[in-house]
Amino acid sequence: MTGTLHILGIGPGDPELITLRAARLLAAAPVFACFAKRGRPGNARTIATPHLNPAAEELRFEYPFTTDLPVEDPRYPAEMAAFYDACASRIASHLEAGRNVALLCEGDPFLYGSAMYLFDRLRAAHRVEVTPGITAMAGCWSRAGLPMVHGDDILAILPATMPAAELADALRRCDAAVVMKLGRNLPKLRAVLAELGLTGRAVYAERGTMPGEVILPLAERDDSPAPYFSLVLIQGRQGQR
Amino acid sequence: MTGTLHILGIGPGDPELITLRAARLLAAAPVFACFAKRGRPGNARTIATPHLNPAAEELRFEYPFTTDLPVEDPRYPAEMAAFYDACASRIASHLEAGRNVALLCEGDPFLYGSAMYLFDRLRAAHRVEVTPGITAMAGCWSRAGLPMVHGDDILAILPATMPAAELADALRRCDAAVVMKLGRNLPKLRAVLAELGLTGRAVYAERGTMPGEVILPLAERDDSPAPYFSLVLIQGRQGQR
Repeated sequence: MTGTLHILGIGPGDPELITLRAARLLAAAPVFACFAKRGRPGNARTIATPHLNPAAEELRFEYPFTTDLPVEDPRYPAEMAAFYDACASRIASHLEAGRNVALLCEGDPFLYGSAMYLFDRLRAAHRVEVTPGITAMAGCWSRAGLPMVHGDDILAILPATMPAAELADALRRCDAAVVMKLGRNLPKLRAVLAELGLTGRAVYAERGTMPGEVILPLAERDDSPAPYFSLVLIQGRQGQR
Repeated sequence: MTGTLHILGIGPGDPELITLRAARLLAAAPVFACFAKRGRPGNARTIATPHLNPAAEELRFEYPFTTDLPVEDPRYPAEMAAFYDACASRIASHLEAGRNVALLCEGDPFLYGSAMYLFDRLRAAHRVEVTPGITAMAGCWSRAGLPMVHGDDILAILPATMPAAELADALRRCDAAVVMKLGRNLPKLRAVLAELGLTGRAVYAERGTMPGEVILPLAERDDSPAPYFSLVLIQGRQGQR
């Protein structure tokens, strides 16, 4: 009997925002794995800590220094592919020995998660099951008290890395939006939103549902670089009340 | 001491895809409320049944027959507003008597949920807390084994009710999409996807994570009207592997 890989969404940060299913599978797994930056505990690992089986074996997948290169660098894709190959191979040995493996993912595994690269590599030869998780954006809009979309509203999930003109165009064509990957792009995003008259509807959220949570109108956020766990929410038009 | 309204996302259908937080708040609430169509148990009620406190008082909010009118009918908004006013008022009496109320919502409360209308009415005068939930679409893409977006992909959530030309335009401008409100719009959506060469990437999902789940390539789904719990998933471009 070979093992099953359980790819588990563990939610946006609050350990209580994990599903019953993910908590059950995590507690039962003899092996768990998570991605982390070198020298850091890893966000997924931190969130999941209260739910881990203390006797389980831990696989740490530390991103190579490659991730400090710009994505456009020709060395980037090859080195990342080699990294994901190595992670997949470590998981495969456990599965082949008959042990289930739980792979922890912040948010939802299939929404901008690194676990997708291991899913792609392992699904053909192994049993793989995916448990959805609460996304960071849902954690943020719940904490912000910001109903996002109703009726026939269009919602767009956009990276702030888009050129200003494309970002403006995309925002014009939707009713509500979540803008991610803020980083150094806040001044650009702010200018686009002002041009479209959307500044008053934009809310900045950082570390939603976690210690150190920051939620405030974008107008009150300065232009210093935004951390990884941050996004801007733009609520949909007010529909029928 | 007045009570707190807990608006609880209870997930896409599988009762195990509720969060620990929602399960805890639901079990502790002396009163719970849910929306339902007349004469039907209500999907939220069905999903939450294993987690209810059997001693709790139940408030059923049955949609008026108004919902059989087209949304454009002038009677629709006024009658729906009166309905939501009445629901809010029933909840408010419990809160004012010091009882917490749990309002159950399929999926996530702030993503196309009726609970938003009660949130709008009650938040000014009462303590209201929102617990995010796993969305139907996340339930579907997890069950379908369909990684949706990575890197800088743009994700669009679109209603199939859009005119064909607008739908085509929106699909051209994103990398991945979820198309909802299929109803009688499958032939239109199918024609748009064929025009854009996206047919091969489109997956039809119905009742994801629930009994009676159907997941199949859109090409294999006939054009008969799609039920309420259905959507089409279009996976993002394959990024770096």
